[in-house]
Amino acid sequence: MRTVIWEQNQVWVIDQRKLPLTLEYKKCEDYRQVALAIKDMLVRGAPAIGATAAYGMALAAARFCNLERPGFLQKMEEVSKEFAATRPTAVNLFWALREIGQVIEYNRDKQPGEISKAILQTAEKIVGDDIDTNRAIGRHGNGLIPPTANILTHCNTGSLATVEFGTALGVIRTAHGQGKKVHVFVDETRPRLQGARLTAWELVQENIPATLIPDNAAGMLMKDGRVDLVLVGADRIALNGDTANKIGTYNVAVLAHENNVPFYVVAPTTTIDFDMESGRDITIEERTGEEVTHIDGVQIAPQGISVYNPAFDVTPARYITAIITEKGVIQGPFGDKLRSLGGKDMREVKP
Amino acid sequence: MRTVIWEQNQVWVIDQRKLPLTLEYKKCEDYRQVALAIKDMLVRGAPAIGATAAYGMALAAARFCNLERPGFLQKMEEVSKEFAATRPTAVNLFWALREIGQVIEYNRDKQPGEISKAILQTAEKIVGDDIDTNRAIGRHGNGLIPPTANILTHCNTGSLATVEFGTALGVIRTAHGQGKKVHVFVDETRPRLQGARLTAWELVQENIPATLIPDNAAGMLMKDGRVDLVLVGADRIALNGDTANKIGTYNVAVLAHENNVPFYVVAPTTTIDFDMESGRDITIEERTGEEVTHIDGVQIAPQGISVYNPAFDVTPARYITAIITEKGVIQGPFGDKLRSLGGKDMREVKP
Repeated sequence: MRTVIWEQNQVWVIDQRKLPLTLEYKKCEDYRQVALAIKDMLVRGAPAIGATAAYGMALAAARFCNLERPGFLQKMEEVSKEFAATRPTAVNLFWALREIGQVIEYNRDKQPGEISKAILQTAEKIVGDDIDTNRAIGRHGNGLIPPTANILTHCNTGSLATVEFGTALGVIRTAHGQGKKVHVFVDETRPRLQGARLTAWELVQENIPATLIPDNAAGMLMKDGRVDLVLVGADRIALNGDTANKIGTYNVAVLAHENNVPFYVVAPTTTIDFDMESGRDITIEERTGEEVTHIDGVQIAPQGISVYNPAFDVTPARYITAIITEKGVIQGPFGDKLRSLGGKDMREVKP
Repeated sequence: MRTVIWEQNQVWVIDQRKLPLTLEYKKCEDYRQVALAIKDMLVRGAPAIGATAAYGMALAAARFCNLERPGFLQKMEEVSKEFAATRPTAVNLFWALREIGQVIEYNRDKQPGEISKAILQTAEKIVGDDIDTNRAIGRHGNGLIPPTANILTHCNTGSLATVEFGTALGVIRTAHGQGKKVHVFVDETRPRLQGARLTAWELVQENIPATLIPDNAAGMLMKDGRVDLVLVGADRIALNGDTANKIGTYNVAVLAHENNVPFYVVAPTTTIDFDMESGRDITIEERTGEEVTHIDGVQIAPQGISVYNPAFDVTPARYITAIITEKGVIQGPFGDKLRSLGGKDMREVKP
């Protein structure tokens, strides 16, 4: 199942807000629809956001390639800024936009039509690489999964969070595929319920044994010795290993630490922010209070109550047992290990 | 505002499931309606459950007091068992039933009509004591609240959880009433959202500054130094201080401990189980998965997913800074301090 598809100057994305009740693709014929799909979280998950933005840039390029070169280049710069403004935390978005930006720069003397083709090729490469990367992550992560394992996960890190295979859920898929007896405790992940709506749905689809829990039950399960390890994704990893991920990840990490449960972050190296030394500097997106006071239009809190609704939190590196990437498992403490992974991928996708 | 009212052989309870949208009392003319109101959580909160069950016993006594003495006594025993089967964790329920049982025993040679009167008097005393107790708790707890304080709370411990004033929320009410600048972070408290539906509603009603948060945001707030103390209620406290309370309380306690935030349990001494040495033995109620998969009838999880939905967890005593009771503040470590509070209240309510 592909989260995002390019087809003849159209981008199709799964409208994840309609899951688990309806699997529906939405057609985007204009780049602004793609930007809105990211902003309104039809598409979410750091790697999926990056890939979708890349296709969005390709869509804009196709639309504006009849302009003269200077107008085209200026327009593409504006569009890039529009995409950058959709979601502030996931670094994969900025990474993908930088990749596309470098391709434009590299080809800036060519005709807009040619630049446009190069952009689409780069987007296709980002998408293809994401799938390869996810499968490599799955293989590396699988090495950490015992033959029988109760795994707790938070938010959605599956096909829906990536182009198709998944990061943390990709590791679970790989282990299950190899015949290991895995059972997944799925945090429902308030407020947007990505665990209940998306992760539970993916696991039911694939017959991977799973139990949905309120986020509040995660601590008790760990205290009772019913969780062997935790696998979560990441939206941005600083060079010291501090990790921004879905709100509540920090809670899970502290609870795991307190109960001696290994806590693994699973992410492609494109989620590492090589310009950021520590998690202190990560911008945390704050979203509307309505995500908390209403569920599918049903009001669950009184009129007049203030709401604080941060979309992410930052888990300090000291709570993270290891980070599982496509290049291997990086054991904590991280020291300069993450820095040494830098740079390579970005060069790879240049045409 | 009274959570439960006795009026001419009728018991009126607020149907808390309809809050925060509608404040509606439900009339119970039969004791079985009262039992169902507890089981279905129209009434919830450990002290409120105890008081409501006492009135329910009085309702049953009024109905059966035309029976011969042996039939009456047998019937009352059966009714007591029905009430005991409604909710397994909150000890106040069993405490109230034992109080009523002792009154029946004490008066067993009298006519059913007289026993029935004694039962109602005892129920009225339980209700009246709960209010006095709550106000005393408020005064003792207020001593721990600084002039300006950001307080995090979980679930509902207000008027709605008691007969009228509240335990943890009673402390907040007292501090606010004395002009302290308190601001409350309200955990929404999935799955039943008592924080969002009830606590937020009570605080809005009284203009006490408050901010609703997803449970997942509690950790981040504590890590960011934005919480000065935590106040929670209790459903059962073992003699060593281990405390059963709404699911997720353990998470909050561990997060508070990790971030050096004082964590206070607020409860009347009737919540202490003097027959229980440690929290290991506390029965944890497991509720239907539909509380997690559906919100007000709206489906938020896929068909076919398993659910684990424990209503409570147990916070080990070592995470609890102090327990605030009507008899004073008991600082941890608790040693034999809780045991020394035992017995007195039970004698007090005997006629």
